[in-house]
Amino acid sequence: MAVYTDVTTEDLVPFLACYDIGALLAYKGIAEGVENSNFLLHTSRGYFILTLYERRVAERDLPFFLALMEHLASRGITCPQPVKNRAGSTLGRLAGRPAAIVTFLDGVWVRRPSAAHCAALGEALARLHLAGADFPMRRENALSVTGWRALYAGCGERADEVQRDLKTTLAAELDELECSWPRGLPQGVIHADLFPDNVFFLGDKLSGLIDFYFACTDTLVYDVAICLNAWCFEVDHSYNVTKGRALLANYARIRPLSAPEWRKLPLLARGAALRFLLTRLVDWLNVPPGALVRPKDPREYLRKLRFHQKVKSVQDYGVDHGATKP
Amino acid sequence: MAVYTDVTTEDLVPFLACYDIGALLAYKGIAEGVENSNFLLHTSRGYFILTLYERRVAERDLPFFLALMEHLASRGITCPQPVKNRAGSTLGRLAGRPAAIVTFLDGVWVRRPSAAHCAALGEALARLHLAGADFPMRRENALSVTGWRALYAGCGERADEVQRDLKTTLAAELDELECSWPRGLPQGVIHADLFPDNVFFLGDKLSGLIDFYFACTDTLVYDVAICLNAWCFEVDHSYNVTKGRALLANYARIRPLSAPEWRKLPLLARGAALRFLLTRLVDWLNVPPGALVRPKDPREYLRKLRFHQKVKSVQDYGVDHGATKP
Repeated sequence: MAVYTDVTTEDLVPFLACYDIGALLAYKGIAEGVENSNFLLHTSRGYFILTLYERRVAERDLPFFLALMEHLASRGITCPQPVKNRAGSTLGRLAGRPAAIVTFLDGVWVRRPSAAHCAALGEALARLHLAGADFPMRRENALSVTGWRALYAGCGERADEVQRDLKTTLAAELDELECSWPRGLPQGVIHADLFPDNVFFLGDKLSGLIDFYFACTDTLVYDVAICLNAWCFEVDHSYNVTKGRALLANYARIRPLSAPEWRKLPLLARGAALRFLLTRLVDWLNVPPGALVRPKDPREYLRKLRFHQKVKSVQDYGVDHGATKP
Repeated sequence: MAVYTDVTTEDLVPFLACYDIGALLAYKGIAEGVENSNFLLHTSRGYFILTLYERRVAERDLPFFLALMEHLASRGITCPQPVKNRAGSTLGRLAGRPAAIVTFLDGVWVRRPSAAHCAALGEALARLHLAGADFPMRRENALSVTGWRALYAGCGERADEVQRDLKTTLAAELDELECSWPRGLPQGVIHADLFPDNVFFLGDKLSGLIDFYFACTDTLVYDVAICLNAWCFEVDHSYNVTKGRALLANYARIRPLSAPEWRKLPLLARGAALRFLLTRLVDWLNVPPGALVRPKDPREYLRKLRFHQKVKSVQDYGVDHGATKP
């Protein structure tokens, strides 16, 4: 929750003059997002979000993210739409940072998603995957299986400070996932971070998807596995089979999963749990002294990992046996 | 720059149901203000600011602040207008905090005010003082002369860590101001914190005043002295006589100052400089380790204090001799 870069009116006015979005009426720094600095803009033409990309986002990836949002919006996905400047570009520079303006999206995120929210999420995720099918750009997923060993190298030695025997658990899981990670499943654009705070609702209706800054080209059903982790566990860390069924059934209704995709889902769910366990562990062990933001507890994802390790088949996620036969 | 209290959709929706401002469409925490948590609300009826009052603002003072904004708005001052809930109250409770909704005000604040901005500020300040004349509530100024000794007690011993001989300077100034502080000048509602970040402009036109959470009943021309300090010095700490003249002349055009008010202005300007020197010094010496926000340098106000100490008469501020004769 931070604005890292101060933007002065004196800098913003000439920047906005390069866009056809009217005169500046107001702007406020938004206390959301940990990667970038975001500002809500009010101009005589409406409301927009201005993002200044800070160093955690690689500048070379920005054209992928911005083009993806444009592509998805043109395919009917409700997501922020990058605004082109007068030179036809969606990417500019402001206060020494790469900067972009996107449309403002109404909606609020839900802290405790219901099964109905999970159903809507499943459908939206499938539609996102279909809409991304003809997106021509590629971006490797640096946070998939090939990236985990480097993360582990940066936190494994100190893992037991967080939980006894965590280092051993991580090492064994990593070995196993590296060997058995599926390679031949359908690939495409995945969001890769579709947590509840990136999904807007108006009432029970899903109104939009945001924050495409982890999006990449990867196994589609891995994105489903990430969402199972992020949406279908309760506060007490128990898996909610009703929510899981709602998410999976509504995804498969829009984009049917093949038998191999169903079969590999438990393994991919373990991978997704390991990915967030590792990144949270790195953040947890590297909190600057006195930081105002407390990082998220990695042990939440250890518990989820243990659940997935015990899953025998996709039926344990609440899916009807019949649904898994194409 | 912080949001101290997280507000969930689940808490916000029932809170808003007590107001006649339509359905919630979106809300974002605003990274501005250091005293309270502020959110921008979008509802089907428009845009609003939701404020949760944190512990630095005394709950007993909130009725004064909210009633003042209502009063000023009804007298034609452009400032945030508190929105009444269905029970007719402007003050509610949300997430365990006192909370209020005010109207959203367009405008941006100017980092480097010009003489034209200072002129507009002078006029707006005078109109604020006139509009407050019949406001029936009173609130003592805890940060005026009677409050400074307590501030000094909390930072004087360590003052020399910031600047050599600062403790001696503060003690002598405090003694002198306590003896000579004027008591009989016209009193009324003052803003008491009308720095550039609390004054909105659209182009060169002043569009509104915000942040009335230091407002109180005090000597009116002391508010002018605060603004002289906050608006009329350059980045190199030199006093800009053109800006001072613009501020003072435009104030006096709307609310003429009496001869005693003009005469006491240099002394009040010293007091205003001492007030911000002391509060900045307290903040500077009490930074929590690792805090993300660096406090403002108190020495800026030491330099301003020294300027005011050398002022012989109000003419040194750029005022024509004739203007000071009623």
